[in-house]
Amino acid sequence: MGRPLRVGIAGLGTVGASVIQILDRQNEVVAQRGGRPVEVVAVSARDRAKDRGFDLTGFTWFDDPVALAKSADVDCVVELVGGSEGTALETVRTALSLGKHVVTANKALLAKHGLALAKLAEEKGVSLAFEASVAGGIPVIKVLCEALPGNKVSRLYGILNGTCNYILSRMELEGLTFAECLKDAQRLGYAEADPTFDVEGFDTAHKLAILTSLAFGTQVDADAIYVEGISSITPLDLSMASELGFRIKLLGVAERTETGIEQRVHPTMVPKSSAIAQVMGVTNAVTIDADAVKELTLIGPGAGGDATASAVVADIADVASGKAEPPFGRPVGHLEKAPRAPMQRHEGGYYIRLTVHDRPGVAAGVATRMAEAEISLESILQKRSEVAATQDRHGRSGAPVPLVLITYAATEAAIRSAVEKISGDGLIAEPPQVIRIERE
Amino acid sequence: MGRPLRVGIAGLGTVGASVIQILDRQNEVVAQRGGRPVEVVAVSARDRAKDRGFDLTGFTWFDDPVALAKSADVDCVVELVGGSEGTALETVRTALSLGKHVVTANKALLAKHGLALAKLAEEKGVSLAFEASVAGGIPVIKVLCEALPGNKVSRLYGILNGTCNYILSRMELEGLTFAECLKDAQRLGYAEADPTFDVEGFDTAHKLAILTSLAFGTQVDADAIYVEGISSITPLDLSMASELGFRIKLLGVAERTETGIEQRVHPTMVPKSSAIAQVMGVTNAVTIDADAVKELTLIGPGAGGDATASAVVADIADVASGKAEPPFGRPVGHLEKAPRAPMQRHEGGYYIRLTVHDRPGVAAGVATRMAEAEISLESILQKRSEVAATQDRHGRSGAPVPLVLITYAATEAAIRSAVEKISGDGLIAEPPQVIRIERE
Repeated sequence: MGRPLRVGIAGLGTVGASVIQILDRQNEVVAQRGGRPVEVVAVSARDRAKDRGFDLTGFTWFDDPVALAKSADVDCVVELVGGSEGTALETVRTALSLGKHVVTANKALLAKHGLALAKLAEEKGVSLAFEASVAGGIPVIKVLCEALPGNKVSRLYGILNGTCNYILSRMELEGLTFAECLKDAQRLGYAEADPTFDVEGFDTAHKLAILTSLAFGTQVDADAIYVEGISSITPLDLSMASELGFRIKLLGVAERTETGIEQRVHPTMVPKSSAIAQVMGVTNAVTIDADAVKELTLIGPGAGGDATASAVVADIADVASGKAEPPFGRPVGHLEKAPRAPMQRHEGGYYIRLTVHDRPGVAAGVATRMAEAEISLESILQKRSEVAATQDRHGRSGAPVPLVLITYAATEAAIRSAVEKISGDGLIAEPPQVIRIERE
Repeated sequence: MGRPLRVGIAGLGTVGASVIQILDRQNEVVAQRGGRPVEVVAVSARDRAKDRGFDLTGFTWFDDPVALAKSADVDCVVELVGGSEGTALETVRTALSLGKHVVTANKALLAKHGLALAKLAEEKGVSLAFEASVAGGIPVIKVLCEALPGNKVSRLYGILNGTCNYILSRMELEGLTFAECLKDAQRLGYAEADPTFDVEGFDTAHKLAILTSLAFGTQVDADAIYVEGISSITPLDLSMASELGFRIKLLGVAERTETGIEQRVHPTMVPKSSAIAQVMGVTNAVTIDADAVKELTLIGPGAGGDATASAVVADIADVASGKAEPPFGRPVGHLEKAPRAPMQRHEGGYYIRLTVHDRPGVAAGVATRMAEAEISLESILQKRSEVAATQDRHGRSGAPVPLVLITYAATEAAIRSAVEKISGDGLIAEPPQVIRIERE
């Protein structure tokens, strides 16, 4: 056993506290795995007096995480401060510049500054490890970096945000609205007071940006991601999806296409029989499609103090073992600058829910517009209005009713153009709902 | 980039051929990952003349794999010969003794001689890597060894044999018998001419023995595994299971109990909503329950040339990178000799299908025997005979009908004793079917 790896932990929220407790109780296993002992020597947090349920007196206290990063006693800085700028960035940059290893759970930081920080780590010959930044306790980064050198990845998709998956799961199972489920998620601590970052897909996008780079050997390019959140999803969409053999999940998808790398985050219809469709509640999952291994799916907790700490501790043990591979699997200089595949060129199946006036010729009008755009329909589902008070002699009420179309593969551009024309024709009473379909 | 790692491949079946092709096309990525080039320099197989679809002239040919292992030009031997004794064992032992790294897909060899070979590898300071030996392309060994140092594993269970899962999936989906599905599996190349090894659970047991050691830090102990195969499962069991909210899978289960490590392979009822229940066809899956990460599930191809080769190539890249950790995660001397938990002490829910005579007092008789053994029943399902020709005035036919009991947690000993008494009472017309239930 060599000299201990001396760890400084910046940020003592649930993850930081759990890291300290796990390193204590798994001491021997971590030392075995790392080839030398791991010792927490310093900590930093906003409030020193806060009761965290364990004793901090054994650790050197720093009010300022940057000062902790500068401490000569620290070999490895664990950054759990959060945020893509300010203190977190400065802490990580300082540590790397001084030749210290960094372990972080900060996806926003990596999505924005990952390449620059990785370059700095490479120059200094130290580790920058971030397993905890994506999908919590699921070791997807290790798998992408180390388990698939024999593979060319063609597509990667995942449920990367537990908040959204919790909301969609409850909406489906209990027929509740988005707003009702969001409120519950907030009450249970699964969603923030301002939920925008989660429910509008930005958190998923940060994580996807990191996974895309690792899967395809490309430069992190978060700005290239098309992002759509789940706030527009209604219980009707979920029940229609179910009737048609699908579930709706907020997926992050990265795919190699003829025009480049497509990166997108949006509510997605997935076949009920797929592994990813079974993933309910706050659980995360990632599926990797690759040439040799075909399809690999990893399912596990996407958040939570202990699960995230599990990933942090695995990274710390890897750092201790002397592993100092390039943070993004290959040197930053070797990461391709892949062309961005524009969303308009995306090709796939679509679910289109129109709220049409229940009168003669509407279905025909809709079908004509789809045919004009050369979009083939796989199925059409029209539901009779349940709120209709009066009906004509054909049983029609004249009240708006949902008309759902499932298309065969079509381009985003064709779908948007057809839907726009249908809107212009005055056939629909409400803005259309368009959800992309992802097949196995 | 350092000196190339010179690889010799012993065995050129579908996996060996695929390894050669993958190393060729993924050359750069493997070199990047391994930190140096990887070159196949030598091969060995039974038939030199066989057309394998690619040119062997660039490689030194050996008729004898042991001679390949002895070649001074080979740094790393890939053993794909198979079998737990004879040539495979001698090849691996020779290579390790001479200080060469070994990569193997041979679960039988590892289940039997894994500890001795690991000890030899440790003494010589070389790698013995075997990701491909369990669950084909799923990197479960890497995950267990490297991703979970912060965790104490409490249970691990998996679908580790694609043949059995294919048969059970088809039996369920199409209502076919075991014999019919086995025949199809043989025709499709999913099952051997003599299917015993797969369908009676021995293949699963070999793989489980390896995973148990890695998950619990214990010595490989294949002899301690309770093994039961799937040949007794009937379409009726599968439809009953479905009606009760379960699917039947052949699972390998390893669990830390109060009496020691329980290792068992048997047909298992799993809740339909569980991740593992969704795994159909030849696909494999492993779920790991651990204290920090809670539940982690990996799903992917369990066999097939390319998927298995994907794991072999990942191991070769790890070897090239200089990673030389103890093969079983910790030095053989540190692996615990855990007490074997006897099967009689196993505690869990049970599905018991009795074929009872359809006459008064039978259900009461059965229920009494269960009560005497202090077994609580969660549900009872009695099906009226469909073959009954005549019925008495109560609608009874006197013909045998299935009576299914689902128990709350009970010990194996209690269940066996109760079932034996029920048999002795003359209440049943056929031997009882007992299937263990595994909950999430």
